[in-house]
Amino acid sequence: MTGQKSNSILPQGFSFGATHCGIRKKRADLGVIVADGTVSAAGIFTTNRVKAAPVLLTRRHLGASKGRARAVVVNSGNANCVTGPAGLAASRRTATALARELGCPPKEILVCSTGVIGVPLNAERIVGALPVLTAGRTARREAFDRFAEAILTTDTRSKQSYASCRIGGKTVRLAGCAKGAGMIHPQMATMLAFLVTDAAASPSLLGGMLRQVADRTFNAITVDGDTSTNDTVLLLASGASGAPMLRPGSDGERRFAETLEKVCRKLALDIVADGEGARHVVEVEVRGAPSDRAARRVAETIATSPLVKTALAGADPNWGRILAAAGRAGVPFDPARARVWVVGRLVCRGGVPTPFDEAELHGRMLEREIGLAIDLGAGDGRARMWTCDFTAEYVRINASYRT
Amino acid sequence: MTGQKSNSILPQGFSFGATHCGIRKKRADLGVIVADGTVSAAGIFTTNRVKAAPVLLTRRHLGASKGRARAVVVNSGNANCVTGPAGLAASRRTATALARELGCPPKEILVCSTGVIGVPLNAERIVGALPVLTAGRTARREAFDRFAEAILTTDTRSKQSYASCRIGGKTVRLAGCAKGAGMIHPQMATMLAFLVTDAAASPSLLGGMLRQVADRTFNAITVDGDTSTNDTVLLLASGASGAPMLRPGSDGERRFAETLEKVCRKLALDIVADGEGARHVVEVEVRGAPSDRAARRVAETIATSPLVKTALAGADPNWGRILAAAGRAGVPFDPARARVWVVGRLVCRGGVPTPFDEAELHGRMLEREIGLAIDLGAGDGRARMWTCDFTAEYVRINASYRT
Repeated sequence: MTGQKSNSILPQGFSFGATHCGIRKKRADLGVIVADGTVSAAGIFTTNRVKAAPVLLTRRHLGASKGRARAVVVNSGNANCVTGPAGLAASRRTATALARELGCPPKEILVCSTGVIGVPLNAERIVGALPVLTAGRTARREAFDRFAEAILTTDTRSKQSYASCRIGGKTVRLAGCAKGAGMIHPQMATMLAFLVTDAAASPSLLGGMLRQVADRTFNAITVDGDTSTNDTVLLLASGASGAPMLRPGSDGERRFAETLEKVCRKLALDIVADGEGARHVVEVEVRGAPSDRAARRVAETIATSPLVKTALAGADPNWGRILAAAGRAGVPFDPARARVWVVGRLVCRGGVPTPFDEAELHGRMLEREIGLAIDLGAGDGRARMWTCDFTAEYVRINASYRT
Repeated sequence: MTGQKSNSILPQGFSFGATHCGIRKKRADLGVIVADGTVSAAGIFTTNRVKAAPVLLTRRHLGASKGRARAVVVNSGNANCVTGPAGLAASRRTATALARELGCPPKEILVCSTGVIGVPLNAERIVGALPVLTAGRTARREAFDRFAEAILTTDTRSKQSYASCRIGGKTVRLAGCAKGAGMIHPQMATMLAFLVTDAAASPSLLGGMLRQVADRTFNAITVDGDTSTNDTVLLLASGASGAPMLRPGSDGERRFAETLEKVCRKLALDIVADGEGARHVVEVEVRGAPSDRAARRVAETIATSPLVKTALAGADPNWGRILAAAGRAGVPFDPARARVWVVGRLVCRGGVPTPFDEAELHGRMLEREIGLAIDLGAGDGRARMWTCDFTAEYVRINASYRT
């Protein structure tokens, strides 16, 4: 309920709720985040040309409200994607109903969906559940936990992250939760993340910060290279901490951006670790590229290469595949100047393999976290990405005929 | 032996040989194609920045000789890649030895290797075997068969293709063989194809034709998206058919190009069908794109999507994944105007799924060949690619620790 004292780990100014409204058979499938009043908001969305109805509506709402929002409503079990005009009407109906419940304009409601594609979404189930859901919302940690559970689909565990920093003598808190589906279930699609803070900031400052941070966190993870139709990250800032407004270029802004990155990186790595069938979380570091952008391209090519990822599943220090993947990324470099490391061991230099103890390296690659690095010897560009290994279990899960 | 009468299926003017020289344990690992005299030649090579020594040398030789060649020598079992200056010396040593054997300049020798990366190639094994190999070569079909066997690595079967056409009242023959490794074995890499014809044509005409045809055949197949460091396609034209020189823009050129495409397509599809763990050969057709190039990008994104390929392994008519893959290809289109077909059945139109008998469609997808098609409704661009499905068996093969 609004006005209630927040648990110390959560930012002030928000309450949360979750329930089962009947889209899924048993599990909670509907959640809300409600700000005590209208707050600053920013969002980033899937770059897929095929965008789900809630993505289209939420982008439109953020534009119309100039980055002001009152609440977020999320359903799982149905992505409301490739559902045509009826799908957009269902998202709009959801927003209108929640707006009436809260007494705010519909454009201040942000809507997200995740689940099956191509199945009509029955908005009445959501609408019917909203009065009890909003009435029962609280600012307590348990409510946030339930919200974080309600947004999950094929995830095996809930993903949450918390951090705080001091700004203008006040403690500013940031909390986030995510669902993913880095590896996506048959006809399931989506990475969703919700971030709330009691910092005070303008929507445009939040938006710029969120895009920068997402590039180094949510956009730096890859599981199977498939971008979902519903991906959405939302950041709401209540200002309830009493800290002064974040000013562009200030120390406070820098500290808040670092805190935001910390929270987002934790959620992003949780998603990779929960990838279907994944046994390893893999960091791919690229140095010595002609530019950061080029480094990113090389990192992405390595991190999505099925040959590299299957070798990782076998704990095989197969540096030849890493070098060959780098070579096809479209980035100019001289292989004779490149160096490759696997879990910190130099395995290739000057265009030839270096002697290394393969059995020992294999043993170290059996650990959960594996680091790969390549220096192209072609400049100062750097990039870092995270991925997981590619197991037979992943294929089994994704090849199973839908039932 | 030169001068011997060619078997009717093979072009005149070439002889072939294969042997075991000791790079591999037991299987034939060395093959030669020798033209009766110097002939026109063209080649296309991997675009990977990491290029094996034989690729570097053969490109250089074709440039220095202005597209004239006498022979091709190929070893399997060792890719001679990431082997530094010693690797280049080994390829050069091979070329020089064969040139001495045949009495031609070294620049007329084209060298190819396929097999393990990063292991020094012992050229003396090849050099020691060359005298007997060249002396025993014949123009007979069995010799061509043995050559086609000697170039294989993890392939489960030999890949050959033959065709002929009439040019200027003469029968012109074209024969080809390939190895691939569309799906690549641990540390094995390479698609190799060798094409011989008794047509008469200039190197530049051959080169232009080969590039065009390869774009629609060898470059239109994808198994795991990983480009090898050794990929090479060579085309040699002896002119021994007695047919007139192919002239640019002539009917004869058109007919020969069609024949070349037929031969190359057969080899390309053989490679896809032999992909590690593959159970299906899949044609991906894209229509209605803003341009042919855009269509190609969409086709490639669909054909390399792990989610699409695992769905194919499960015979799952998962059109949502096809549409979502198209959506992330970076090509502008309106999903509401797109249509998707699976094995000829319309499954999605106007931004919503069409009703279809899912069990029946699943049944038809159990067949070996599967066709997917998408019309983006955004122009006249078209493209076609071939791929295979992504099975747990592929992961098992590629994740197994090298021994």
